[in-house]
Amino acid sequence: MNTEKYARHIFNEIFNSTFAKPGVTRKTYGKGENYTHQFIIKELKKYTEDIVIDYGGNFLASYKGIKDPKTIVIGSHLDSQPHGGNFDGLAGVVMGLCLVKKFYELKILPNFNLSVMGIRGEESCWFPYSYIGSKIALGILDSKLLTTLKRSDTNKSLAKHIDAAGFNSEFVKQKKIKFLSKDICAFIEPHIEQGPILEKIKKPLGIVTGIRGSFRYRSAKCVGLYLHSGATPLDYRKDAVVAVSMLVKNMNDYWIKQNKNKKDLTITFGEFNTDKDEQSFAKSSGLVNFCIDVRSQSKIILNQVKKKLHNEIRIISELTKTKFVLGKETDSEPASMDKGLIDKMIKSAKKTKVDFQVLASGAGHDASIFANNGIPASMLFIRNKHGSHNPKEYMSINNFLKVLKVLEYMIVNYK
Amino acid sequence: MNTEKYARHIFNEIFNSTFAKPGVTRKTYGKGENYTHQFIIKELKKYTEDIVIDYGGNFLASYKGIKDPKTIVIGSHLDSQPHGGNFDGLAGVVMGLCLVKKFYELKILPNFNLSVMGIRGEESCWFPYSYIGSKIALGILDSKLLTTLKRSDTNKSLAKHIDAAGFNSEFVKQKKIKFLSKDICAFIEPHIEQGPILEKIKKPLGIVTGIRGSFRYRSAKCVGLYLHSGATPLDYRKDAVVAVSMLVKNMNDYWIKQNKNKKDLTITFGEFNTDKDEQSFAKSSGLVNFCIDVRSQSKIILNQVKKKLHNEIRIISELTKTKFVLGKETDSEPASMDKGLIDKMIKSAKKTKVDFQVLASGAGHDASIFANNGIPASMLFIRNKHGSHNPKEYMSINNFLKVLKVLEYMIVNYK
Repeated sequence: MNTEKYARHIFNEIFNSTFAKPGVTRKTYGKGENYTHQFIIKELKKYTEDIVIDYGGNFLASYKGIKDPKTIVIGSHLDSQPHGGNFDGLAGVVMGLCLVKKFYELKILPNFNLSVMGIRGEESCWFPYSYIGSKIALGILDSKLLTTLKRSDTNKSLAKHIDAAGFNSEFVKQKKIKFLSKDICAFIEPHIEQGPILEKIKKPLGIVTGIRGSFRYRSAKCVGLYLHSGATPLDYRKDAVVAVSMLVKNMNDYWIKQNKNKKDLTITFGEFNTDKDEQSFAKSSGLVNFCIDVRSQSKIILNQVKKKLHNEIRIISELTKTKFVLGKETDSEPASMDKGLIDKMIKSAKKTKVDFQVLASGAGHDASIFANNGIPASMLFIRNKHGSHNPKEYMSINNFLKVLKVLEYMIVNYK
Repeated sequence: MNTEKYARHIFNEIFNSTFAKPGVTRKTYGKGENYTHQFIIKELKKYTEDIVIDYGGNFLASYKGIKDPKTIVIGSHLDSQPHGGNFDGLAGVVMGLCLVKKFYELKILPNFNLSVMGIRGEESCWFPYSYIGSKIALGILDSKLLTTLKRSDTNKSLAKHIDAAGFNSEFVKQKKIKFLSKDICAFIEPHIEQGPILEKIKKPLGIVTGIRGSFRYRSAKCVGLYLHSGATPLDYRKDAVVAVSMLVKNMNDYWIKQNKNKKDLTITFGEFNTDKDEQSFAKSSGLVNFCIDVRSQSKIILNQVKKKLHNEIRIISELTKTKFVLGKETDSEPASMDKGLIDKMIKSAKKTKVDFQVLASGAGHDASIFANNGIPASMLFIRNKHGSHNPKEYMSINNFLKVLKVLEYMIVNYK
């Protein structure tokens, strides 16, 4: 079977077996994720000699190169959002699988070991936490989380789910690992782009400079006073809608300015709601619930934006006589992709004549965990339609093969 | 029984009989409203000779003066919001009742007839329409509404409810009236203030210059695109939250400016909601549902604001690549209170040494219907805590009596 046919076959098999109308559902440590790991391991066994599964259920299948044990890892996650798309995560692992198959069949012997890694639990929708699998693989998952994290559908702990899937939460707790990170000279994660850029500029490949970190207030609110819309003069108002609107407008203006100065940044207020029970067209609003999501590749910029945000809130609070309560903050660290790997990718894309765009990743990825723990990491984005986390997500096999070509050239010529 | 005791007694009786935890409920043409009309009519029969009930159930009880049939009407409505306060509407009618009682007992003979009017169906929460009673009294209710308006709790037509309460929807349809408006030289509506001003400045009496008219878009929306918060650059966004926030902020800035120039105006966005099913902290928003309520005593200002609003929407739409759909517009006409009556009220307040504030009414009232149909109208606001349409609404009997004193002086000295 040629690579195109093989890739189609693998994607179709997994799609059919994990389909849950209208998308695919592969819960972390659930049926769909377990099936996908097993299916791909079965395939990898045909082309690799050595498959290791760690205590949290991540696998690493290695095709030996000349300089064993030095290893280049191609990997991504195999869980999905509920009713998500088939390619988010899966495409990266399938690309690694296609590559070892080709190496095996054509008896290509690369300089370094080529390992394919399947990672557990990347999506934060099942347990309210990201990168569970890659953190387990590196022995850095906070042990407390094994009991405190509960899966959204079962309310059972992460430890229970790890054990039920046939792995060993006790060893995870002890931070025992099976993959030696000192042997890994590169972690490469091919992944569909979740933003619109490649689709818009019609290029198959994105070479990622870094993964944006973030700070978020998921349950912020602004408290004002409900007052008669017609009978309450301006000076008496404490209008939460006006206050939060000012915040949105001012932070968006700030973003526009930073964007002109080429600062890497996104600022998003994805939820903005007056209170269903008390809201009325005939009252100024006493309560707005909202959330803020700020992302940047630069920790410095994130801190600047946070300072700006708090300053705006102070000023707006005073102006509008309202009170802001931001609630719990959640953060993620930005991660830089390895400069040497980026250069190799650019060179490979040029050599193979695959049109590419250098860009940042706005979404979080397992690659950030490797990068922030001393392993040179790199990401290749594959052009993708309609965003991700939804059934309409669409990557063409044609674009998948173009990116595979770049990756193959890069691995074969890796020194 | 002196006036204070009598007023307390009336308010208490009606409160107890129409109490529906946690407030009072007097539905338009429902049990509570019917009871209140009957109770007050029974009282009025003790002090007046002539009580007329029209085809829609409004009553007019007249205490004869020297210049009969020239009549000053003191009136307001007797329905309430669900679980509303006891004084909204009722206070005005009880004030008229207290006055005829006093005139009767002290054998005071005013120049003009003094009539107390109890009006049906002012609140728009039962039938989605305001001023049903006063429009029936003046023979100007659009006949179609008798069948098209359905009460929110029964889904039965206005006509059905009028007939069930013992009145005559057929004659209402024919616009037959019983009160000759040519004989009415003044319609005076005492009413609790529904805004915070009198409470704030600690004055018992507001003398109303006019009743604000309005235009409203109760079901407006802005349509953008749901896009990944971290992966979608600024230039690709179509963010409905940003768009509507800009609109709120810019319209509020406009109001601040108009307010500085002493323009009579309120602008309120009471509801602002992203879509519950699709919103996420990790997506820019593709949909915001919101509403706008704009009020002014001046038709010219209302038109200027509407022009400004549409202009802002045009600009913001283009800037944010979003689409606004304002939906159905509902309007109400502003009404001016009679200058002669305002002067008489000011003079009376000064003579009786009752501290007062001249102000506009932001809420709508039956007085606007009389004013806009050729009857000189006037409103006296009574100081009131905690707004209206809720059980916390609170008017002190002390303030009620102060306003009554002003009204009594004005009527006795009316020429």
